[in-house]
Amino acid sequence: MKKSLNEIAVLIGGEVVGDGDTQINSVNGIREAQEGDITFLANPLYKPLMNTTKASAIITSKEIHSARKPIIRTDNPSLALTKVIAIFSIKEESAILPGIDKAAVIGKGVKIGKNAAIAAFVVIEDGSMIGENSVIYPHVYIGSNTKIGSNTKIYPSVTIRENTIIGSSVTIHANSVIGSDGFGYVQAGESYQKIPQTGIVVIEDDVEIGSNVSIDKARFGKTLIGKGTKIDNLVQIAHNVRIGSNTIIVSQAGISGSSRLGKNVTIAGQAGIVGHVELGDNVIVAAQSGVTKSVSENTIVLGSPASSISEQKRIFAALHKLPGLLKVVKALKDKILK
Amino acid sequence: MKKSLNEIAVLIGGEVVGDGDTQINSVNGIREAQEGDITFLANPLYKPLMNTTKASAIITSKEIHSARKPIIRTDNPSLALTKVIAIFSIKEESAILPGIDKAAVIGKGVKIGKNAAIAAFVVIEDGSMIGENSVIYPHVYIGSNTKIGSNTKIYPSVTIRENTIIGSSVTIHANSVIGSDGFGYVQAGESYQKIPQTGIVVIEDDVEIGSNVSIDKARFGKTLIGKGTKIDNLVQIAHNVRIGSNTIIVSQAGISGSSRLGKNVTIAGQAGIVGHVELGDNVIVAAQSGVTKSVSENTIVLGSPASSISEQKRIFAALHKLPGLLKVVKALKDKILK
Amino acid sequence: MKKSLNEIAVLIGGEVVGDGDTQINSVNGIREAQEGDITFLANPLYKPLMNTTKASAIITSKEIHSARKPIIRTDNPSLALTKVIAIFSIKEESAILPGIDKAAVIGKGVKIGKNAAIAAFVVIEDGSMIGENSVIYPHVYIGSNTKIGSNTKIYPSVTIRENTIIGSSVTIHANSVIGSDGFGYVQAGESYQKIPQTGIVVIEDDVEIGSNVSIDKARFGKTLIGKGTKIDNLVQIAHNVRIGSNTIIVSQAGISGSSRLGKNVTIAGQAGIVGHVELGDNVIVAAQSGVTKSVSENTIVLGSPASSISEQKRIFAALHKLPGLLKVVKALKDKILK
Repeated sequence: MKKSLNEIAVLIGGEVVGDGDTQINSVNGIREAQEGDITFLANPLYKPLMNTTKASAIITSKEIHSARKPIIRTDNPSLALTKVIAIFSIKEESAILPGIDKAAVIGKGVKIGKNAAIAAFVVIEDGSMIGENSVIYPHVYIGSNTKIGSNTKIYPSVTIRENTIIGSSVTIHANSVIGSDGFGYVQAGESYQKIPQTGIVVIEDDVEIGSNVSIDKARFGKTLIGKGTKIDNLVQIAHNVRIGSNTIIVSQAGISGSSRLGKNVTIAGQAGIVGHVELGDNVIVAAQSGVTKSVSENTIVLGSPASSISEQKRIFAALHKLPGLLKVVKALKDKILK
Repeated sequence: MKKSLNEIAVLIGGEVVGDGDTQINSVNGIREAQEGDITFLANPLYKPLMNTTKASAIITSKEIHSARKPIIRTDNPSLALTKVIAIFSIKEESAILPGIDKAAVIGKGVKIGKNAAIAAFVVIEDGSMIGENSVIYPHVYIGSNTKIGSNTKIYPSVTIRENTIIGSSVTIHANSVIGSDGFGYVQAGESYQKIPQTGIVVIEDDVEIGSNVSIDKARFGKTLIGKGTKIDNLVQIAHNVRIGSNTIIVSQAGISGSSRLGKNVTIAGQAGIVGHVELGDNVIVAAQSGVTKSVSENTIVLGSPASSISEQKRIFAALHKLPGLLKVVKALKDKILK
Repeated sequence: MKKSLNEIAVLIGGEVVGDGDTQINSVNGIREAQEGDITFLANPLYKPLMNTTKASAIITSKEIHSARKPIIRTDNPSLALTKVIAIFSIKEESAILPGIDKAAVIGKGVKIGKNAAIAAFVVIEDGSMIGENSVIYPHVYIGSNTKIGSNTKIYPSVTIRENTIIGSSVTIHANSVIGSDGFGYVQAGESYQKIPQTGIVVIEDDVEIGSNVSIDKARFGKTLIGKGTKIDNLVQIAHNVRIGSNTIIVSQAGISGSSRLGKNVTIAGQAGIVGHVELGDNVIVAAQSGVTKSVSENTIVLGSPASSISEQKRIFAALHKLPGLLKVVKALKDKILK
């Protein structure tokens, strides 16, 4: 399929600068693009690549006024990109056909909604429900009395333990584990006795969960992932954690037991949050930070132990002056105190 | 089922303060509890919640003498809670029935103990043994010549490689990998040649291992997880590591090759231990620490690189004074050295 | 099987010091070895163990000239060890027989090479290809239109998503996920809209990937793992990352989206690399470091945020003097400024 730049500009709502008759037949990254591709510049870091890309045209923000190549200026290049990808309808994933594969094992009293697809080697235990149009890939295990909404996708080898509640339009990527026992023991002399973990996990609508993620069930009550929250790969969510809506948790971050996150929070990669603290709405935790106490809303914290960004920036700057400082103080000491 | 507070107090061994006739029909967390529930206070952080919980009664430690609500004072509220949960016999997980599912694949010479349950889509390779009453959930892979004791539970999609030895009353949560090859290569020019990893993993009795954990087999000899040790989710245990009994390793921590941990050690979340070091009995490594050398018994270390808690606390405190210090030294320098 | 030390020395290319008639029947670690075993000393840390090992002989480097026990001096003890292991041909893993197990599900148009082994409960979707002699263990999922070369091993419960390209002599350990969606969203008001992830993952020849690893497909274009690169367990490789040849990435490290690593790079355990940076050839990133900007070739960086090893060593040393410094400055201030 080919489209002219003018046609694309109309479809994505942008303004062409340059030759609007340029013919486009695909979309690609700014480095990978070849002639005939349209690409995009969302991250200003990549601006110098506008001069070297082989793409035939570039989608940019309004900050860019012109370029050597034809451009489409838009208010939101990332959103425009999403629309362009849809236009060229790039071939997507393996189709799991609606219906129950004959090599799936379905327990007693299980209800499967209209057009739901249950692939080979799936196990669904007694009393569980799968909503309409949901897709359950091969090797998924769904424990008893679990409820999964409609239009939800569960990728291969995900394990979902009993009594879990998962909303609609949720995506869980491969090999993640939802509802394993929380990590709770009572010390009895030298050894540890397990505390029964009898709660559940609740995942609200529009949540996306990456691969190899662990979300533990509550000791009792529930571990909650709020509507629209997005969780990257290899993240740990401990028992009884509650996460608000539209929160972002980047890869390899960990949230310890019973901590609570507000909405629109961002936890960057490899950060850790101790147990039993609260992070208010819109809090941002920088990568590799270690949060040891509650953080009030609209605050950015970093460092391990984490404190406010302004304090940490002063500390980081001072640290680099520290070796020099030692010399100055020694000189002063030699002159004054000796 | 309903029980009076007096009845519960007898069963868990505690003393009622307040109305002993209060009727209880369930147990729940202090925030989640409703009328009719009993809850508990183990963490002093939550003390203010005693005044706001909707629970009808609270299990407390002996430090609490009375409250607005009826309480049961006990020596060990967490242990008492475990007993209360047992009393109200909260419904547990999917029952995998004893016997070998017809959709399991069992190799030659495999021995399955009495009352063991082997679920659908399990693969057990030649020469392996599963002890009495053990439960192997769907999608588990057990390599050849592996021995698993009695009363052990292996959750879905766990992979256990050949020659592994697992004791009795062990629990391994979903999607963990036991006995993968250790990470060992010899540099030969620019490229790397794999060192054969021909050892095994030995997991002693009463060990619990979380979800998405990786425990590598030894280069030769064994990687050892001692009796009663508890490992949280997403933990890395490299080849030839030896861990003593009753040790706690919290989520996302990593132990590098050939390091040895004593008994009753605690490794907090996201901490890392380099290879070839020893940590003595009762060592505590704080969250996100990086341990770069051996640590003698009964020591608490933190920081990256880690050192003793007393030194690190002084450093952390001094760090926050550092920006101010720079100004003072500049003033001194201006006055004296210029 | 028994061999004399003289025979072994000829086979591995080394020089015997001591009794060359010593009979050896197995190989083991320096701590684990018993009488009749040969062991080796590669890491100088273990030198004192040469006097306490129960092994009958030791393979050493040329730096060792003699010992109480008979030794074989070699140029490269680790390489010699690999040869010795081959000599004693220690029994290896479960044999998956060539052919397609009757409990595997194979899609339309799938091509399986000669002598390839496809185990029980494997799912291969339409249009995929598996090369000669490759082994696909139980519970592996291979999405549509994926190509896997020859002599490649995919361990149990690995998920490989559609359109992935995997070379020859590649090993992927259990429960890893290749080709899941990258973590990319556009903020639209309070909520996030998913950016389609339509690229692929390409894994070149001779790559080894540990267990529980997550490698995301590209937003578009490809995520690339270069020839001969070795990746440890629980590592995160985000969308559009490109990694050169013969690079080492140790357990629990994470590489964020669109970053590029050269060849012969080493990323130590639990280190993190932000997105959109480049690391030149032979760069070494120390354990737990956080790399926030590009690093030029042949550089060692550490710390979080990371800087050069020389600067960080000065900072670490100065940090330990900081509490003392505060006292000195206070004394100076009291004398001069008050």
